[in-house]
Amino acid sequence: MDTNHPMGPYQVRPVGIIRQEVARTTIEVFDAYADALMGLEDFSHLVLLAWFHGTDTRSRRKILQVHPRGDPRNPLRGVFATRSPARPNPIGMWICRLLKMDGNRLLVEKLDAFDGTPVLDIKPCTEILDPAADVRIPEWAKKGRRT
Amino acid sequence: MDTNHPMGPYQVRPVGIIRQEVARTTIEVFDAYADALMGLEDFSHLVLLAWFHGTDTRSRRKILQVHPRGDPRNPLRGVFATRSPARPNPIGMWICRLLKMDGNRLLVEKLDAFDGTPVLDIKPCTEILDPAADVRIPEWAKKGRRT
Repeated sequence: MDTNHPMGPYQVRPVGIIRQEVARTTIEVFDAYADALMGLEDFSHLVLLAWFHGTDTRSRRKILQVHPRGDPRNPLRGVFATRSPARPNPIGMWICRLLKMDGNRLLVEKLDAFDGTPVLDIKPCTEILDPAADVRIPEWAKKGRRT
Repeated sequence: MDTNHPMGPYQVRPVGIIRQEVARTTIEVFDAYADALMGLEDFSHLVLLAWFHGTDTRSRRKILQVHPRGDPRNPLRGVFATRSPARPNPIGMWICRLLKMDGNRLLVEKLDAFDGTPVLDIKPCTEILDPAADVRIPEWAKKGRRT
């Protein structure tokens, strides 16, 4: 590894939090960042980056291969080929429909995330893949929605 | 703001670097993380998270609203409604086609990113939006590919 690599570390701070209720998910953006939401309601979908805080430990960051979804019947795969929360930088990504924006509270479609998950970033979803993009995923990844 | 919010900060470390050549982009994953790539070649597209290191300053992280793409003719928008590199946590996201995987080097379609950009995470692209998802974006966002 040459020494010109930028090694970090870099610091990230939560800008909000995921709140789970029975049938819905709300993203609460902290007051200090509310101004950063202006215009987001013009998009139908957003990209959410959040921190897998519940499972972030030094040892889990060292896990490089897993059986996706914790199912030993799935082939062993590198974590970069899965959505496992065990990964060197435990950042999760969701693409979801924005149902309603009420001040600094974003009601989105139900997300598979723990209540209290810290939000790192919100982006508008602009780069929808062309339906003709010929997206290919392996068989094991077709069996469930995530990981 | 109540005190139950997880405030961080959290640390992230580069797992690789973006290398730009004239007509192509290569993601070089550091040797220490090469095992995390196993199986990624089974996916046609990947999600890349990278750090906007060239523009990360304390003052730029405080910018909450911008004219998208730096064009004053675009309406002022919250950074969470844009892809601006100026944002509280300067993480960029790209979805791109994986053209070839050669050991720990991923050749991908040309990305709009600076040479030397630190890579934070790679994920398989599994959650392609349904073409029938009725994606809506505002007019200003239709004029270019990013921001």
